[in-house]
Amino acid sequence: MKSIVIIFAIGVLTSLMVHADTNNAEIQGVISKYESALNASNADNVLKLYGNNPTFMPQHAPAQVGRTAVKQAYDNVFNTIKLDIKFSIHEVEVLGDTAWARTNSAGKTRILADNVVVNEGNNELFIFKKENGEWKIHQYLFSTNQPRQ
Amino acid sequence: MKSIVIIFAIGVLTSLMVHADTNNAEIQGVISKYESALNASNADNVLKLYGNNPTFMPQHAPAQVGRTAVKQAYDNVFNTIKLDIKFSIHEVEVLGDTAWARTNSAGKTRILADNVVVNEGNNELFIFKKENGEWKIHQYLFSTNQPRQ
Repeated sequence: MKSIVIIFAIGVLTSLMVHADTNNAEIQGVISKYESALNASNADNVLKLYGNNPTFMPQHAPAQVGRTAVKQAYDNVFNTIKLDIKFSIHEVEVLGDTAWARTNSAGKTRILADNVVVNEGNNELFIFKKENGEWKIHQYLFSTNQPRQ
Repeated sequence: MKSIVIIFAIGVLTSLMVHADTNNAEIQGVISKYESALNASNADNVLKLYGNNPTFMPQHAPAQVGRTAVKQAYDNVFNTIKLDIKFSIHEVEVLGDTAWARTNSAGKTRILADNVVVNEGNNELFIFKKENGEWKIHQYLFSTNQPRQ
């Protein structure tokens, strides 16, 4: 009887660990798709990664709440700069249908108005929500880690 | 029997709701104490609000990981500026012993080097962890929402 309980417990633990790994991998996949959409200046693809009621906090602007505002904010970004960046994921924690991740990104940005390329680097915090079985960005804040100009 | 189950279920739900409210109030209290410590330029009091293995992401610098690095970063901030800001809390979500909050802050900053006062405004994301029964800041990122200079 004891061995059955132990086998059952190991089974439950293994299932939980596999589940956590799957969620973690899915969230890393969302961040990877977000990186691709940013580098492609593709606001539609960015929006596919956001959830039903998202908040995006661009620098130098109020928090943008809701899909329409978030879409407009990314359109503004992509009308101003062309990004060429790579994300590094430092921490992902899954808590049921919510998760958070800390990342940083590094690369270059082309300022479209004057065609100048500058270093780009940011720290980021993401809050994700699982909606209809898919991880979506719920809250997203980034901030430059580059030296003050 | 059915009524006993319903009464028990209501009891459990009420207990969970009260518990959530308590956590929510405690987290609001941490943010309030953080505001006070910032406005007092008190790095020791700031550090009391951070957990065992925190990350603080100041602007224009790499992410600061660990209590020693976080303390040094706040010392640098308080050697440079004197804040006079107020936080507004937009969302707090508690998930067991983890929570997140979205806030913004607004007010004034005195640049100590030249004694100039400028507008200060940021968006913030906090990740909290309950450590030994107390909510502590685990991850913290802010980013200016003020127009580009």
